[in-house]
Amino acid sequence: MTIRLICLDADDTLWGHESYFQASYRRFVDLLAPFADALRSEERLVEIENRNLHLYGYGVKGFTLSMLETALEIIGDELTAATTGAILEIGRDLMRHPIDLLDGVVEALGPLEQRGALVMVTKGDLFHQESKLAASGLGDRFSGVEIVSEKNAETYRRIFTRYGARPEEAVMAGNSLRSDILPALEAGAWAVHIPHEFEWAHERAEAPDGEQRFARLGSLQELPGWLDGVNAGA
Amino acid sequence: MTIRLICLDADDTLWGHESYFQASYRRFVDLLAPFADALRSEERLVEIENRNLHLYGYGVKGFTLSMLETALEIIGDELTAATTGAILEIGRDLMRHPIDLLDGVVEALGPLEQRGALVMVTKGDLFHQESKLAASGLGDRFSGVEIVSEKNAETYRRIFTRYGARPEEAVMAGNSLRSDILPALEAGAWAVHIPHEFEWAHERAEAPDGEQRFARLGSLQELPGWLDGVNAGA
Repeated sequence: MTIRLICLDADDTLWGHESYFQASYRRFVDLLAPFADALRSEERLVEIENRNLHLYGYGVKGFTLSMLETALEIIGDELTAATTGAILEIGRDLMRHPIDLLDGVVEALGPLEQRGALVMVTKGDLFHQESKLAASGLGDRFSGVEIVSEKNAETYRRIFTRYGARPEEAVMAGNSLRSDILPALEAGAWAVHIPHEFEWAHERAEAPDGEQRFARLGSLQELPGWLDGVNAGA
Repeated sequence: MTIRLICLDADDTLWGHESYFQASYRRFVDLLAPFADALRSEERLVEIENRNLHLYGYGVKGFTLSMLETALEIIGDELTAATTGAILEIGRDLMRHPIDLLDGVVEALGPLEQRGALVMVTKGDLFHQESKLAASGLGDRFSGVEIVSEKNAETYRRIFTRYGARPEEAVMAGNSLRSDILPALEAGAWAVHIPHEFEWAHERAEAPDGEQRFARLGSLQELPGWLDGVNAGA
């Protein structure tokens, strides 16, 4: 048994993401400061985002629409054109935030390519994720790019099949226990958690520390060595 | 040579779509009627949508953000909370418009399934297109669903490869000359135009009437018979 399909998450695994969302949250609660304290604005925004997930899915455009809905709820008839414009601007800035590759990513991809087919597996907005991949300059490194609306065991099984690998020949590496690790393990694959300093409220979950096919590494740069260990039967 | 991969567009090929967008345009220009005539509002909205395509891509969420941007531009500081709320509501209604299958679609799918693998190929918002497919009840009829950010020859080549068909073994059927027909022909496949009463401004193009692999049919129900003709070398 050799791992020969290497699936990698993108946001906060290859490049920074959540820090830009956090900055947007701060700009939003500052805008609403004359009407509500920061905690209330943020709580309402998170609730409205969650309520809208079934309608908008994940991504910046839905987040922007949820910010506007939250502002309407909190400010009511006093919501001005200037504030509406400022919220649209927060969303636009988030759509075009710089793509800053995380430490070790560039160094890791070469060794990983030598060890298997690389597939990017990411959730969110199709158009925005493709734009970010293009801006990252990493497009050529991947055999495939899978942008999905939800990462669950069924999603991973479908991807493994598509690339001709059995689950035990595949690994998923990413920063989210809920989206990258638990469903990949459930699908029968290996899963490597590479925590990022930011953890998104939607993504919290318990680490499956007793699980044989689970590992936690400090950076993507450690993944090639870990693969060698598993493939050698270590 | 037998056509054995049957790719179908979704919006305005399987179910109604553009009529709902047109109704949203009418609601939008009515909202802005105190500030601009309908023609000017619609022209500005189309221009702003086009300007934002590189940022938002296709889909209802980006359309909603473009409506808000247009309202800000036309109404300026007099944009009220009520109008902002009404625009968000136009967008939400469009996200959850009913899925009304076009005439002949249900009758066509059975005969088509007997003639090849069915793959839905659609452009737009990943989450929304998946939601519409789920609501349509047609999900089980398709061997694959390809939601793409742009339909060009490269997109079609990639899809044919993914489903193991050479271009001359594949047909793409849809209502848009620009997105469904011309790039599929360029990729070397067959292409069947099934016009819909609504034609989207972004999608206009000249029909390739001299092209050997091109046909125009009145409804999807005629596609199985057309396939039989081609496959018999008629």
